Amino acid sequence: MDAAQEAQKREAFRQAVVNTLERRLFYIPSFKIYRGVAGFYDYGPPGCAVKANVLAFWRQHFVREESMLEIDCPCVTPEIVLKASGHVEKFTDLMVKDEKTGTCYRADHLLKDYCKDKLEKDPNLSAEKAAELKHVLAMLDDFSPEELGAKIKGYGITAPDTKNTLSDPYPFNLMFQTSIGPSGLSSGYMRPETAQGIFVNFKDLYYFNGNKLPFAAAQIGQAFRNEISPRQGLLRVREFTLAEIEHFVDPEDKSHPKFSEVSKLEFFMFPREDQGIVNNETLCYFIGRVYLFLTQLGIDKDRLRFRQHLANEMAHYAADCWDAEIECSYGWIECVGIADRSAYDLRAHTKLVITPVKKELGLAFKGNQKKVVEALEAMGEKEAMELKATLEANGEAEFHVCTLNKDVTIKKNMVSISKEKRKEHQRVFTPSVIEPSFGIGRIIYCLYEHSFYTRASKDGDEQLNVFRFPPLVAPIKCTVFPLVQNQQYEEVAKKIAKSLTAVGISYKIDITGTSIGKRYARTDELGVPFAITVDSTSSVTVRERDSKHQIRVNVEEVASLVKEVTDGTTTWADVQWKYPTHSS
Amino acid sequence: MDAAQEAQKREAFRQAVVNTLERRLFYIPSFKIYRGVAGFYDYGPPGCAVKANVLAFWRQHFVREESMLEIDCPCVTPEIVLKASGHVEKFTDLMVKDEKTGTCYRADHLLKDYCKDKLEKDPNLSAEKAAELKHVLAMLDDFSPEELGAKIKGYGITAPDTKNTLSDPYPFNLMFQTSIGPSGLSSGYMRPETAQGIFVNFKDLYYFNGNKLPFAAAQIGQAFRNEISPRQGLLRVREFTLAEIEHFVDPEDKSHPKFSEVSKLEFFMFPREDQGIVNNETLCYFIGRVYLFLTQLGIDKDRLRFRQHLANEMAHYAADCWDAEIECSYGWIECVGIADRSAYDLRAHTKLVITPVKKELGLAFKGNQKKVVEALEAMGEKEAMELKATLEANGEAEFHVCTLNKDVTIKKNMVSISKEKRKEHQRVFTPSVIEPSFGIGRIIYCLYEHSFYTRASKDGDEQLNVFRFPPLVAPIKCTVFPLVQNQQYEEVAKKIAKSLTAVGISYKIDITGTSIGKRYARTDELGVPFAITVDSTSSVTVRERDSKHQIRVNVEEVASLVKEVTDGTTTWADVQWKYPTHSS
Repeated sequence: MDAAQEAQKREAFRQAVVNTLERRLFYIPSFKIYRGVAGFYDYGPPGCAVKANVLAFWRQHFVREESMLEIDCPCVTPEIVLKASGHVEKFTDLMVKDEKTGTCYRADHLLKDYCKDKLEKDPNLSAEKAAELKHVLAMLDDFSPEELGAKIKGYGITAPDTKNTLSDPYPFNLMFQTSIGPSGLSSGYMRPETAQGIFVNFKDLYYFNGNKLPFAAAQIGQAFRNEISPRQGLLRVREFTLAEIEHFVDPEDKSHPKFSEVSKLEFFMFPREDQGIVNNETLCYFIGRVYLFLTQLGIDKDRLRFRQHLANEMAHYAADCWDAEIECSYGWIECVGIADRSAYDLRAHTKLVITPVKKELGLAFKGNQKKVVEALEAMGEKEAMELKATLEANGEAEFHVCTLNKDVTIKKNMVSISKEKRKEHQRVFTPSVIEPSFGIGRIIYCLYEHSFYTRASKDGDEQLNVFRFPPLVAPIKCTVFPLVQNQQYEEVAKKIAKSLTAVGISYKIDITGTSIGKRYARTDELGVPFAITVDSTSSVTVRERDSKHQIRVNVEEVASLVKEVTDGTTTWADVQWKYPTHSS
Repeated sequence: MDAAQEAQKREAFRQAVVNTLERRLFYIPSFKIYRGVAGFYDYGPPGCAVKANVLAFWRQHFVREESMLEIDCPCVTPEIVLKASGHVEKFTDLMVKDEKTGTCYRADHLLKDYCKDKLEKDPNLSAEKAAELKHVLAMLDDFSPEELGAKIKGYGITAPDTKNTLSDPYPFNLMFQTSIGPSGLSSGYMRPETAQGIFVNFKDLYYFNGNKLPFAAAQIGQAFRNEISPRQGLLRVREFTLAEIEHFVDPEDKSHPKFSEVSKLEFFMFPREDQGIVNNETLCYFIGRVYLFLTQLGIDKDRLRFRQHLANEMAHYAADCWDAEIECSYGWIECVGIADRSAYDLRAHTKLVITPVKKELGLAFKGNQKKVVEALEAMGEKEAMELKATLEANGEAEFHVCTLNKDVTIKKNMVSISKEKRKEHQRVFTPSVIEPSFGIGRIIYCLYEHSFYTRASKDGDEQLNVFRFPPLVAPIKCTVFPLVQNQQYEEVAKKIAKSLTAVGISYKIDITGTSIGKRYARTDELGVPFAITVDSTSSVTVRERDSKHQIRVNVEEVASLVKEVTDGTTTWADVQWKYPTHSS
């Protein structure tokens, strides 16, 4: 099969999955009756249940099993926090505008699409030109605005729809901005990640943990990125659920006590060429735990890999980063980022302390002392840290005092500049952070693709859709069908439904006269793993979705049996031994 | 005890609760290291766990037991949706500004504070004046901006801090505004309620339910209100979690099949004077279910009441409303609103259909026909519905056509104006909506107050704090303490911890040498219901928090025992019969 056929097949597969997902309301484009807004999706009933199950398992697998401190912070965040974290300045994509219509595009997307298109479709492309375009693709994340602009102009790239000329690229901040309080003077943003809420609470959490390292904090919540041009359905959206862990460690001791529990796992890793392998046990431990989390959800282990970021890909805060990438019809998709953020964030939120030494300043500046002190205390962080560096290098520095309208010479002994540090056992350091960050929507979308298959109907006339969700993930755990419409069976069905509710198992009851085959097909398409069919008043059949095997179980036992296979305290294979097979 | 003493006592009680909550990180003022922003709070580890437990129980009690369709929509909402729902126009509070400093205040709060202060503290107040002020308090929600402004001026109310004069009151929209997409042209808001996400999906959800009524949809998520002046700690905040149910019914049949299950419950109800009692079974059923939900969480039934809204209190969309109000140190607090929104919302999102009858228009207007058609089609909803009403009343109406710069006469047969309706059994109607809407943060805060008590320490020296959370709600279900520091006990403790994790029970292990009494006290303050103390390698003691009774249980059994009492499949009273008592 050549590349074009492969692409076609992938596209057809995706269409089949997406059609099923939309038809069964796994998701719905948001505000559809108002023609929608790009990059926003609702989770309909089955999608919402899948999401709740994934998050519940995340809590069990990470928060509970690792005794993490889970917290919950607001989405609205004041500007000062996101200035300190670097997001106000650096959380941008480069944008170009159609000079006539004002329509906006992501500059790198246009260049990427141009190069790919040429490479795929231009039969007259010289080998030299092809090599150049490939080089451009590899360098995409490295270009400055000027370089990107020069390429766009050089290749004559125009606005896709109108063919109008494009503006020079300029940075567009991806945060949704708003204003807090009634005055309109206090700027805020919708958080682009949940992590900052943890960092600003570090001190309290450290205290809560008995002033001991290492410990991890976790947060599940909405994050917001005002994407220039949302693409790829559920994969690049403007609002999404993140589940993030911030594991704080002593930078000189990144060992992990439970490392041995994951050290034997085998999976695909793609390290960067210039680097050996994962550089510490904690990072490694989390890679292992993420692998277990994803595969237990139902992600195909052969379509999962851990890839180390190239230097030019890394976020502004990361020192090293491994992505869990999952292959789907869109290619390899980053679903979990496992970053070593080193001490970047805690340093960013660490308080700047400027202490003018009044005695020395008084001796040097006499009557002007007060104005010099005020000017020193008013320094921003950047200016202060530069002054500190100059003082340390040269012993003195020129310093402009506005209120005196002149430069003065500040000596090293006249001011102390520092950032607050944590003291532990008399050693002063800022803890490092290892951050596994989960894009829940992306994981769920990949899970849909990995779980989807079709099989022939009984009479062979039709291809039926099935999601092979593990019981853990399935939006509904079982169905209850009276085989035929009669009052006795209906009462048994309702009795079973009630006992399922009592043990907390979600079910769907269908008492219509529709043929049992059709009822199975409808719920296979929702990924319901078990179907209870009431065909007598004392015992019922239980059918497993993928094998279609059926067993006979007493009415009284059936709810707890379904609970056990759903919770994973027993398996379908074990259950098949224990109960008689039913052949329909 | 007089009113002042009562108030003092309430204040002292609140301080004790709030101190404990803040010290143990149940909540934290957000962005504290940056001096915080009013109206935002983080949930620290125990608070976050309590919230997760409350939401899990909400899902079980409402979504699962009632087979509701749960969905999950974005917080960012385009303007068009909130214009249709009325929020852009009507979701406002009246604000006044300090004319010199620009500081903003809620106009009704200032007037309320003034009246209350006068009534409480002015010994020379005449009976006549007192009656007037009481009348003002009763009418607060009814005043127009002009009336409110006149009262403020009349009483000489000035800005609280500066005593500067105040501006006239004007409406301030409480929604956080933002801009969607890179162009800056598309306005959006952070949703003020989750309900609209359900309404705009009504058609799909109705289809999902087999085109049958009644059915209910539910949503849990963040909502945002840019309060002018946040007050009362966790009770009036700018971002909060709502859990909302929209139960769609045929307006002519509001019976409920499970009504009999709640009809025997007894609780406090405060109907409006002019109205009898709850006007339909469905509304009644939900009041009963809400009562069960709150009391099972641990809300004191004697401090819970259902109060019918007065006409002047109701939101712009409500036809009738009953609030579940919980009494706490701040007074009676609205925690759940149970509103009959009638057909307001579905009508608001129903598409306006204007169909000009071209043949008739052509005959009447000849060459001008096209311009008249365009003008008719361009009508906004309000204009269109007015025209429709006039046509229905008079058979014809004057209609201004801009492009012709004149009025023309439109006859009834020239245009049909309607809003899309739902057809069911050939009867055309818009379903009504009953909406129970839960302010999760408020419920949790009241729960904290209702659960808090103090008791003397063993030696009588100290008052110790306890939260008597039911196991369902408790942030941590049990503790594991080796009685003394030794390796054998520690290993047993770790073994028990592991089996607790395996059954999904959260625990806290404390292997420090701190006295067992101190360890109990620390965790009583977190509301941990059960404490396992390892004092041998074969069996351990289990202590219940409130009674302090202890029983002896085998090491192998203890995890499943704690799980059973936590899940409610057995009770502590039963367990006490089954296992030997331990007296320490």
